[in-house]
Amino acid sequence: MIYLDNAATTKPSRAAAEAMLSVVEDFGNPSSLHGMGLSAEKKINSAKQALSGMLGGMVKNIYFTSGGTESNNLAVIGSAMAKKREGTRVVVSAIEHPSVLEAARYLSDIGFDVKYAPVDTDGRVDTNAFSDLITPETVVVSIMHVNNETGVIQPIEELSRIVKSKAGKAVFHCDCVQSFGKLPININKLGVDMISISAHKIHGFKGCGALYTKNTRISPIIHGGEQQNGLRPGTENIGGILAFAAAAKECCNTNDEMKMKMKRQLMADELKSIISDIVVNGSDEYNSGSVLNVSFPGIKAEILLHALERHGIYVSTGSACSSHKPLPSHVLTAMGVQQKLIAGAVRISFCEATSVEELKEAASVIAEEVKTIRRYM
Amino acid sequence: MIYLDNAATTKPSRAAAEAMLSVVEDFGNPSSLHGMGLSAEKKINSAKQALSGMLGGMVKNIYFTSGGTESNNLAVIGSAMAKKREGTRVVVSAIEHPSVLEAARYLSDIGFDVKYAPVDTDGRVDTNAFSDLITPETVVVSIMHVNNETGVIQPIEELSRIVKSKAGKAVFHCDCVQSFGKLPININKLGVDMISISAHKIHGFKGCGALYTKNTRISPIIHGGEQQNGLRPGTENIGGILAFAAAAKECCNTNDEMKMKMKRQLMADELKSIISDIVVNGSDEYNSGSVLNVSFPGIKAEILLHALERHGIYVSTGSACSSHKPLPSHVLTAMGVQQKLIAGAVRISFCEATSVEELKEAASVIAEEVKTIRRYM
Repeated sequence: MIYLDNAATTKPSRAAAEAMLSVVEDFGNPSSLHGMGLSAEKKINSAKQALSGMLGGMVKNIYFTSGGTESNNLAVIGSAMAKKREGTRVVVSAIEHPSVLEAARYLSDIGFDVKYAPVDTDGRVDTNAFSDLITPETVVVSIMHVNNETGVIQPIEELSRIVKSKAGKAVFHCDCVQSFGKLPININKLGVDMISISAHKIHGFKGCGALYTKNTRISPIIHGGEQQNGLRPGTENIGGILAFAAAAKECCNTNDEMKMKMKRQLMADELKSIISDIVVNGSDEYNSGSVLNVSFPGIKAEILLHALERHGIYVSTGSACSSHKPLPSHVLTAMGVQQKLIAGAVRISFCEATSVEELKEAASVIAEEVKTIRRYM
Repeated sequence: MIYLDNAATTKPSRAAAEAMLSVVEDFGNPSSLHGMGLSAEKKINSAKQALSGMLGGMVKNIYFTSGGTESNNLAVIGSAMAKKREGTRVVVSAIEHPSVLEAARYLSDIGFDVKYAPVDTDGRVDTNAFSDLITPETVVVSIMHVNNETGVIQPIEELSRIVKSKAGKAVFHCDCVQSFGKLPININKLGVDMISISAHKIHGFKGCGALYTKNTRISPIIHGGEQQNGLRPGTENIGGILAFAAAAKECCNTNDEMKMKMKRQLMADELKSIISDIVVNGSDEYNSGSVLNVSFPGIKAEILLHALERHGIYVSTGSACSSHKPLPSHVLTAMGVQQKLIAGAVRISFCEATSVEELKEAASVIAEEVKTIRRYM
């Protein structure tokens, strides 16, 4: 098996699995007053400390959620609701994850004035167009760090400067689900107020994410007990949380941005050397290196995907979360990619464990299958 | 260790742990189009089938959430929002879990007309008072099956008949977090439209729950991708889900209501035989048997709790989720229990694995510690 769908989900690491299993014996409810509760609470606190440290900040402002989708909803809806008396403008980019886009759509339904910042043909937010959308009435901005379909890094620091200069009361949320554990992240350096991260994208388990904030006022979207300062009630998913911290430690220690970019380049070069007319979607310069989005003209991506899985090679068409939708990728559409190239776009996504041999083998099989499919289309 | 805090959380079973670990190898994203996604999707579907079967219903209407709190929020807020044009009355009992009470408070904040049904001294919803609150404008009713602090079974079938006769457009949600896996549950027999369940109360892992519905219209509270019909987007917590189904199968096969009730009676009798003035809170007749709530007059429950944990015996004061609040139990308060008895109330909660020997030993240590504490107070 050559697994090249790491942007969809990753294999839980051994350290993550061990952390998860540790709660079978030490299974207390962190809210319990007795020693078993205390032990659970301490472990959660140390996971908070570890993850916060990797995001460059203080401990107390990390809230565990059920994953990236909930983190993004809590950030976008929660901060908009907390600020609804201060203004109604909400700005997101056109290439955000569905969990940000749909949260923004919900805000639009209840009366917020939502604007979508366009991107250029490289897949990066157009800073001039973005700046035009930022008004003094802007209360929430949400732009992702790395796009999940293209791997393109967004100019967050620059956008942050624009927001700070034009909208004093706005909070800036950054969806770092695809960058955390791959690129160095520092909430202060990025200049944002909230960061979403997810465990299963970095070799933790599905069902766990976090929202890291800098003293941002947020209204809860789930109501209940006193857990997590009442901002995110419900018994904490301690197994998922400990596994998340364990996986994150490994990723942040072993990630090597340059190596990742070399893998992406190698895959692109190998493919190009056999199929000359492929088109790489998204900036090469501003790329996390973990995703190669490539269009094979004249090919239906889904046919290629199924052909490849017969060889044990797993890739995807667009993002997993909208894979059952028949619509063309909203990301590539926003970048102005031609519809026929969108139809033939495949996302190949790597992790630290992806080897050069695997990449070369996969490239050769992909090229072979593309040639075969073209013969029949 | 004698763990008597099973209403707060339970030890994950071996079958649950094995199911959780199975996703380390078979780690696909259920939304991925390739074979690894399909394999994950199939497994989730078989977990849905298993859990739905245990609730007496059809497969397609089960939605996985991050736990009981989110399930209750989705049911109460989601169905109220879907019906907001049909009426504004929402009725919950005074003894609901904080996740229902706070969801109801949120609805009240945004304009719904929320009413709280009182309970009698036995801890059961007063059917006459309940009936008076049910009007034709009632859109949502939420009453728990078994109370988490007392183990008292609520007269759901009777309440359902009242709702059906007086409020044709109301949907009835039943929080079965404390009854699932302990009492037989059938959504049709109970006469309700939605049921919340949670994995970690029945030897699954924390971080996973479900909302089972009968064709109820519900608005999502988390927005995003197409997962779970868009009603609960976000990559499914497949490890938690498979562990939940595995744990539920065991519980539903091995649960024995009569044995549980005998354990509760044994504990009460043992305690009474040494400390004659204890007061059992809540009905003995209508009890799941899994919880004994008992007041030791003149004792501060928290002092007893800490004394017991020095012997490796774990109990709780009230519910875990509000244990860090200094407020007296809202459940015992609603039952009319005197404040001094509430201060000395301890919740002792069992599971199938709790042995008679453990119960006898715990009762003897509890009685000893109560005597010691009384000497110093």
